[in-house]
Amino acid sequence: MRVGILTGGGDCPGLNAAIRAVVKRGTAEHGMSIVGFRNGWEGVINGDAVPLTRDDVSGILVHGGTMLGTARCHPHKVEGGLDAVHQTFEDEKLDALICIGGDGTLKAASKVHKSGVPVIGIPKTIDNDVVGTDSSIGFDTAVSIATEAIDRLHSTAESHNRVMVVELMGRHCGWIAVTAGIAGGADIILAPESPFDIEAIGKKIRHRHRYKNFSIVAVAEGAIPAEGSDWDADDTLDSKGNPIAGQVGAQVTRAIERVTGFPTRLTTLGYVQRGGVPTAADRLLATRFGVAAIDAAAGKEFGTFTALRGERIEMLEFSEMAGKTKYVPEELLRTAWGL
Amino acid sequence: MRVGILTGGGDCPGLNAAIRAVVKRGTAEHGMSIVGFRNGWEGVINGDAVPLTRDDVSGILVHGGTMLGTARCHPHKVEGGLDAVHQTFEDEKLDALICIGGDGTLKAASKVHKSGVPVIGIPKTIDNDVVGTDSSIGFDTAVSIATEAIDRLHSTAESHNRVMVVELMGRHCGWIAVTAGIAGGADIILAPESPFDIEAIGKKIRHRHRYKNFSIVAVAEGAIPAEGSDWDADDTLDSKGNPIAGQVGAQVTRAIERVTGFPTRLTTLGYVQRGGVPTAADRLLATRFGVAAIDAAAGKEFGTFTALRGERIEMLEFSEMAGKTKYVPEELLRTAWGL
Amino acid sequence: MRVGILTGGGDCPGLNAAIRAVVKRGTAEHGMSIVGFRNGWEGVINGDAVPLTRDDVSGILVHGGTMLGTARCHPHKVEGGLDAVHQTFEDEKLDALICIGGDGTLKAASKVHKSGVPVIGIPKTIDNDVVGTDSSIGFDTAVSIATEAIDRLHSTAESHNRVMVVELMGRHCGWIAVTAGIAGGADIILAPESPFDIEAIGKKIRHRHRYKNFSIVAVAEGAIPAEGSDWDADDTLDSKGNPIAGQVGAQVTRAIERVTGFPTRLTTLGYVQRGGVPTAADRLLATRFGVAAIDAAAGKEFGTFTALRGERIEMLEFSEMAGKTKYVPEELLRTAWGL
Amino acid sequence: MRVGILTGGGDCPGLNAAIRAVVKRGTAEHGMSIVGFRNGWEGVINGDAVPLTRDDVSGILVHGGTMLGTARCHPHKVEGGLDAVHQTFEDEKLDALICIGGDGTLKAASKVHKSGVPVIGIPKTIDNDVVGTDSSIGFDTAVSIATEAIDRLHSTAESHNRVMVVELMGRHCGWIAVTAGIAGGADIILAPESPFDIEAIGKKIRHRHRYKNFSIVAVAEGAIPAEGSDWDADDTLDSKGNPIAGQVGAQVTRAIERVTGFPTRLTTLGYVQRGGVPTAADRLLATRFGVAAIDAAAGKEFGTFTALRGERIEMLEFSEMAGKTKYVPEELLRTAWGL
Repeated sequence: MRVGILTGGGDCPGLNAAIRAVVKRGTAEHGMSIVGFRNGWEGVINGDAVPLTRDDVSGILVHGGTMLGTARCHPHKVEGGLDAVHQTFEDEKLDALICIGGDGTLKAASKVHKSGVPVIGIPKTIDNDVVGTDSSIGFDTAVSIATEAIDRLHSTAESHNRVMVVELMGRHCGWIAVTAGIAGGADIILAPESPFDIEAIGKKIRHRHRYKNFSIVAVAEGAIPAEGSDWDADDTLDSKGNPIAGQVGAQVTRAIERVTGFPTRLTTLGYVQRGGVPTAADRLLATRFGVAAIDAAAGKEFGTFTALRGERIEMLEFSEMAGKTKYVPEELLRTAWGL
Repeated sequence: MRVGILTGGGDCPGLNAAIRAVVKRGTAEHGMSIVGFRNGWEGVINGDAVPLTRDDVSGILVHGGTMLGTARCHPHKVEGGLDAVHQTFEDEKLDALICIGGDGTLKAASKVHKSGVPVIGIPKTIDNDVVGTDSSIGFDTAVSIATEAIDRLHSTAESHNRVMVVELMGRHCGWIAVTAGIAGGADIILAPESPFDIEAIGKKIRHRHRYKNFSIVAVAEGAIPAEGSDWDADDTLDSKGNPIAGQVGAQVTRAIERVTGFPTRLTTLGYVQRGGVPTAADRLLATRFGVAAIDAAAGKEFGTFTALRGERIEMLEFSEMAGKTKYVPEELLRTAWGL
Repeated sequence: MRVGILTGGGDCPGLNAAIRAVVKRGTAEHGMSIVGFRNGWEGVINGDAVPLTRDDVSGILVHGGTMLGTARCHPHKVEGGLDAVHQTFEDEKLDALICIGGDGTLKAASKVHKSGVPVIGIPKTIDNDVVGTDSSIGFDTAVSIATEAIDRLHSTAESHNRVMVVELMGRHCGWIAVTAGIAGGADIILAPESPFDIEAIGKKIRHRHRYKNFSIVAVAEGAIPAEGSDWDADDTLDSKGNPIAGQVGAQVTRAIERVTGFPTRLTTLGYVQRGGVPTAADRLLATRFGVAAIDAAAGKEFGTFTALRGERIEMLEFSEMAGKTKYVPEELLRTAWGL
Repeated sequence: MRVGILTGGGDCPGLNAAIRAVVKRGTAEHGMSIVGFRNGWEGVINGDAVPLTRDDVSGILVHGGTMLGTARCHPHKVEGGLDAVHQTFEDEKLDALICIGGDGTLKAASKVHKSGVPVIGIPKTIDNDVVGTDSSIGFDTAVSIATEAIDRLHSTAESHNRVMVVELMGRHCGWIAVTAGIAGGADIILAPESPFDIEAIGKKIRHRHRYKNFSIVAVAEGAIPAEGSDWDADDTLDSKGNPIAGQVGAQVTRAIERVTGFPTRLTTLGYVQRGGVPTAADRLLATRFGVAAIDAAAGKEFGTFTALRGERIEMLEFSEMAGKTKYVPEELLRTAWGL
């Protein structure tokens, strides 16, 4: 069997661990040949393939990013894209294609699968918004980095009697802000799932500052104010409707300072959340996903993606995740607000 | 409502995060009074109690260990122990008791509950052997520390053309060795779940050293050789039948050197695996467990313990875990061997 | 002897380690009483004092920030400030005052000393610009955090074929940018000591991208373009002439994208550089400084500050540092450019 | 010019950073060819050479260990060793040889230099015992790892009311134990420089346990008891007179338990102290040393080694370090005992 592999969408820690597991397991256990495509779907469309051996993936377990490169490209959005994918699949004499990616890449994978290519997906996303799996590759590392940043901000907040706002990634879901906020002991946590009322926040901070001299506010970049708020949404979105890094944080910072009168400072964590050495948990998850994916390819379970379900890895149909978004559940939002 | 809380068994990172969550949620949300007992069940037996307020738990989220102290003591193994527990429960006018502990402490909790005290459990153990919950407090941090140690050993192994053996915690189960071994890219992983054959290991290492000049071997302290092996079990166990730190690792090290002829060195990681700042994941889990436990106390769901089930926290009956041990599943053992 | 202690200026990791050393050594070795002032010089002016015992400083060694709080306040710039300092010194029956601070705080310390108060200084600054000492408290931790951030940016830069710009602290000196840039393997490093030519940078990046697909650019917040550059300096400075966080980085990012055509992204590290657990080196330096300062107080060597000179701690006159700035030396700038 | 380079003695973090700097600076700035020898002097004797280009050293800045491998081999102790070195030097048409190593490797370098080979040295040693330089490559990382371990042991010591002993590296000097002990807040620090009296230690611990319930003891593997102590030195040394890992720590642990009656536990940190990602400070030092060494080679300053002197890198004659050992100075030992 010859199996292709690609990584698509934004990069994150753990992608290389998954590639390594696919290559090692595929070659040693199943006697397969593995072919990597450069820069996501772009590489499949352009036939930019490279054979991958055990030697090629030696030592990459701890490396962030992806040795294959990545790009935000979807075959069905490119003219002749799907045909080119089929052509490459044939040219490379492939029997299966493993796609590691987030929402967008897996949606593309599902479409490609429906068009007749045997595809298997592996979910990765620091945003943790893929439905069906308890966690996706990259999320644990992002939360770990964000939590360490909140830890660091604590000392400055306390020493200078300040409110410190930290803007974290999360466009549509607040997974990083909510979990890192809880883990880091943030006093206020703002997530897209629950529009915020700046007056209520100001009141809570003023109340807190009667007995404490500082506060930490964790804000998802996609956090939105409740209707009727004094808020300039245009400033926070780019021409495609995506949040501009730092803009939501900046507005929240100004609003808190205005409402409370306390000196308030902003930190926008940015790209460091998605880079560097993956945590042990992400390396383990990525390795298990890689093993499960290549085993599923051997078993011809196509049209599925790997999912963590409690203690087990299961293969789910693409239809279980397609077009859905996993939001932060009520229990976690309540925990975030209740402490 | 007045609720008591204790931490029992070996300490681990995240205990303070759980105590903090219980106290903050209990006082703010439910208007409860919280009472801490010093040094586990010992403190309950002796009536060594201290009131816990929000101020007392401020800042402890990131601290390893337990502010309450801990001890390995079980009321049913102490003469008059159960009666003393009942007496203290009455003296302190308690309505519930939250016990944070591993296998032993929770078994005691179950017995105390059966004797008529309303008890709720929170599982913690770096060994991850509590049945019913996907993970227990402290496990993620231990794996994270062990993985970083394996990362560090890699460079010395490679630079000096050596076999490096690292002995990790895990008496009856190999969770740390298996997961940190996979995450750290260990070449051989020995767990109690699967007795090892030193000749087969030697063969695998010799084979590997034809194209690589080093190997990493992760060994659980409770790893055992297959029957018929040349192995002195007496050297590895203390008078109570527990593994002596470093002894299994030392025998494995000598055996590998003897069988392969390659220079082989041992590192026994020891107590650093159970101390220090908890990972973000452990702080989050401990906080969610603490919140769920005190909510369950408010709802009078006694005789239960908090459990992570996929993305949710559920309350399970003590009977689901009592007398059982969660071993590393086949899938993970195969992944450990297969790469 | 009764000795007062304060921390002034921006907070940083290691301040608590120095306070702890002063209190422990002062009380145990010299039988002194130690008095802490809240929020820097403000606390001295207002007589906001608190006695410090061994118990008070127990466990603070690893905590970032300062338990005493800090503020940017100089007695000679406040009406009646100097008189108030003298009054407090008398009221508290002090024999000496230890001031931990950067440039501004130590300049104030020097003036207060000249006005008749027996003062000893301890230099702290993440900017490392205090003359006379090889290093100041907080610098090593800041460099360590900045280097880890650059490590993380590498994987995203490489995976996405991008230029990543990271803006680091450093208003007048480029110590953090230069040392973290070298340690993190940044390809371009911009420091205030050496005005940059954006065209030359663009050329270097284009040259590099013939064989590599990414670049990392480390920029000090006080970096300035060479004369004649197309640059809007007004956008980068606030009303006091200080750099606005992120503005220099933003202009450099836009300029690189314009000149090279490569997608270029900015990360502004901000306050995380000055918070959290101090490195071992900073804890050691702070402890040695604290011990040296209190020993100097016992020996009545007033008007001096602690300085690291090679392997030794020496006491230098305030005049050696006053009004001077320690810039990054040529050797380091050349190393930064040469690799 | 053609320049050879080798790494000898025990590996440590930062060696690759030095190799990278030599190669990058040598090729780009001086137009040199660089040749690497495998496994220290062994590779020179056997003519085991490999050309090193910029590509070969790309990405190794953060990697622990040494890409060249290392061995404990000295040409003057091998029959015909020196002649073989001369032969290889001639065969490879070298103009200079850069030796990165500790005490032993640099002593060999000095002998080789005297025999007519133009040699330049770069000091590396986690033991920090090379005379003439404020620090050597690897020391800062080792201290950083040891300090983090002590941090972790604190929580277990406190939670369980125990004495925790941690054995750290350092055969003849106590640099790691003393500096990590101070940075980690160890209560007792035992270094070879100052023979210890177990009764005095027991007394100090008993005194401390009147108001604290735990103690941390940092022990260098080469620590020695004062004369007249009840101590079995034979157990702690191997046939070559070197300390056996864990033996000194084990005897200290048993002695403390015997003298104080408090439960006492040992952790032997071992090889993790010398592996893994180097700290920012070590990467910076290694890079500066590499640049200085290759510049010195270009300037034909042979028979010298790179040294950190305050803020500067200087080239010193081999005679300044040969046959000497840098012990921990009195000031640091006093600081270690005084807090």
